[in-house]
Amino acid sequence: MGKTERRIIGFDLGGTKMMAGLIDEKFKVLAREKKKTRGKDDKEDTFDRMVKVIEALLKNNDLEAKDIAGIGIGSPGPLNPETGVIGNTPNLGWNNFPLRDKMKKAIGVPVALGNDVDMGTYGEVSFGAAKGGRHVLGVFPGTGIGGGLVIDGTVHLGASGAAAEIGHVCLDPNGPRCGCGNRGCLEAYASRPAITGRAAAIAMRGDAPALAKDAGTGLKNIRSKALARSIEAGDKLVEEVVRDAASKIGLVIGGLVNVLSPDTVVLGGGLVEALPDLFVEEVKAMVKRTGLPEIAKCVKVVPAKLGDDAVMMGAARLIANQLDIQK
Amino acid sequence: MGKTERRIIGFDLGGTKMMAGLIDEKFKVLAREKKKTRGKDDKEDTFDRMVKVIEALLKNNDLEAKDIAGIGIGSPGPLNPETGVIGNTPNLGWNNFPLRDKMKKAIGVPVALGNDVDMGTYGEVSFGAAKGGRHVLGVFPGTGIGGGLVIDGTVHLGASGAAAEIGHVCLDPNGPRCGCGNRGCLEAYASRPAITGRAAAIAMRGDAPALAKDAGTGLKNIRSKALARSIEAGDKLVEEVVRDAASKIGLVIGGLVNVLSPDTVVLGGGLVEALPDLFVEEVKAMVKRTGLPEIAKCVKVVPAKLGDDAVMMGAARLIANQLDIQK
Repeated sequence: MGKTERRIIGFDLGGTKMMAGLIDEKFKVLAREKKKTRGKDDKEDTFDRMVKVIEALLKNNDLEAKDIAGIGIGSPGPLNPETGVIGNTPNLGWNNFPLRDKMKKAIGVPVALGNDVDMGTYGEVSFGAAKGGRHVLGVFPGTGIGGGLVIDGTVHLGASGAAAEIGHVCLDPNGPRCGCGNRGCLEAYASRPAITGRAAAIAMRGDAPALAKDAGTGLKNIRSKALARSIEAGDKLVEEVVRDAASKIGLVIGGLVNVLSPDTVVLGGGLVEALPDLFVEEVKAMVKRTGLPEIAKCVKVVPAKLGDDAVMMGAARLIANQLDIQK
Repeated sequence: MGKTERRIIGFDLGGTKMMAGLIDEKFKVLAREKKKTRGKDDKEDTFDRMVKVIEALLKNNDLEAKDIAGIGIGSPGPLNPETGVIGNTPNLGWNNFPLRDKMKKAIGVPVALGNDVDMGTYGEVSFGAAKGGRHVLGVFPGTGIGGGLVIDGTVHLGASGAAAEIGHVCLDPNGPRCGCGNRGCLEAYASRPAITGRAAAIAMRGDAPALAKDAGTGLKNIRSKALARSIEAGDKLVEEVVRDAASKIGLVIGGLVNVLSPDTVVLGGGLVEALPDLFVEEVKAMVKRTGLPEIAKCVKVVPAKLGDDAVMMGAARLIANQLDIQK
């Protein structure tokens, strides 16, 4: 099989679905394998399903574990990159789960583990919208507002291993309660639940006819694309709500631009994919308004390019670095 | 003279005074020389005075330029650390002034140049309150609110070379006008002029008797120590104003803790030196209130230790690194 030992696997463990990609040494994706993340809410179940996805990927491509140089995994939740242990992640049913070592043992190859948003940002830096960037801030608004930070070309983890929590930058310590327990976090104003809550209230009182007709007033049905369709159809007050949220994200990014002086800010995730122009426009405007000119002029704000592949590609790059492949 | 070639000079170019220190290879300060920064408002004048301070330091210690391995300078104003050129600094009468190369030529030894707040932070990281820190945020409230950022042991300059502008993190884009031209920057709420303006107004209406008697209502007379004396004497509303400012600084620091996950936050500058307990207390409280627990628990908030020596010592460390002394 020639140089198949240089093939690697990038793995994106998401809250609802998981995906593994078979990747060659030029970082071309040769094949993908997907599965839903949750079966029974049993902790071994998520891990077993991960192993099954990898085994299926190998089998479907006539490969065995020994043909793979290593696996890079992007995972949600707090994790310790040094020990490879995932902290408390109720969604996955894990608490102090030694994912890296368990996977290493199960497949028999080296494994690297990173936070999913970090890996998504690193994927964009390595292969996507921020390619060539040295100092990059990634912001991914969705259910939460994930952040990733690359400094001097390396994922910045900080003293806790959990840096880049941009969704929990506080705008007002007396503001609305956030899912983390604190008050006034950016997420409490600008995550998808915060946006759709306000949009549904507008639809409920009859001021967002397109949204009401298309998705109703149930938050589970108001996905990012429904918001985009509502705005497209002329629901002005829904547009105002989304722009207000994007502007708050821009306010936090503007402050971080002044402190970090990144060369690139990458915006991604479901909301941005549905409404890329709106988000990029509002964030750019706020960076211009609140940034110091000599710093703001050195940063570009761009939408992510890799979509669903970002986390997998960043994780693949991480394990490749550790194996000295194409470093 | 033995190993005198390993002696270096650290230079702190301040807006009102300048100081050079003769420093041995163990980073002991052997001697200091000071001068006021401004004579005539002539650009050569500031530079000439710098050269005179260095020459006096050498002469008073029976040394010549050849006995010195290099000079590290901490300077205010925007500067390009790669070219060693100082941008527009009206206070010093400079605009695109090639300080590093001019000093190199004038004294005949290698010269390294850094921003003064960066050097102050780096001094605290190398020898002071943040010794041993890898990821350190320095915050120095005074006339402005200076910031310095050390990541992975190295001063973080960012894409523009001007990172760590914490004083210009925007709290409210419709807030009060800042000296930078933007609105609602932290400086516009929590710098010494912002604080003393509010304190003077309280004194003017008769609600800060100790301050009124001690310093009057003229902002030039309300220095940091006057604020401290006023609070000590029981001017409750002055204390409230200063605590409010410290709390706003803490709010911005709390957000940055969530994004950078530093191991140490160092608070310094005139205001903090006058009221260290108040500032450390308010910032700690806000980091606790707005930080994510798993990140906040990894950071300590401490007052600076090196006082007026911090910039000089950081600059000395910078040139020593470049010369491979005690690296």
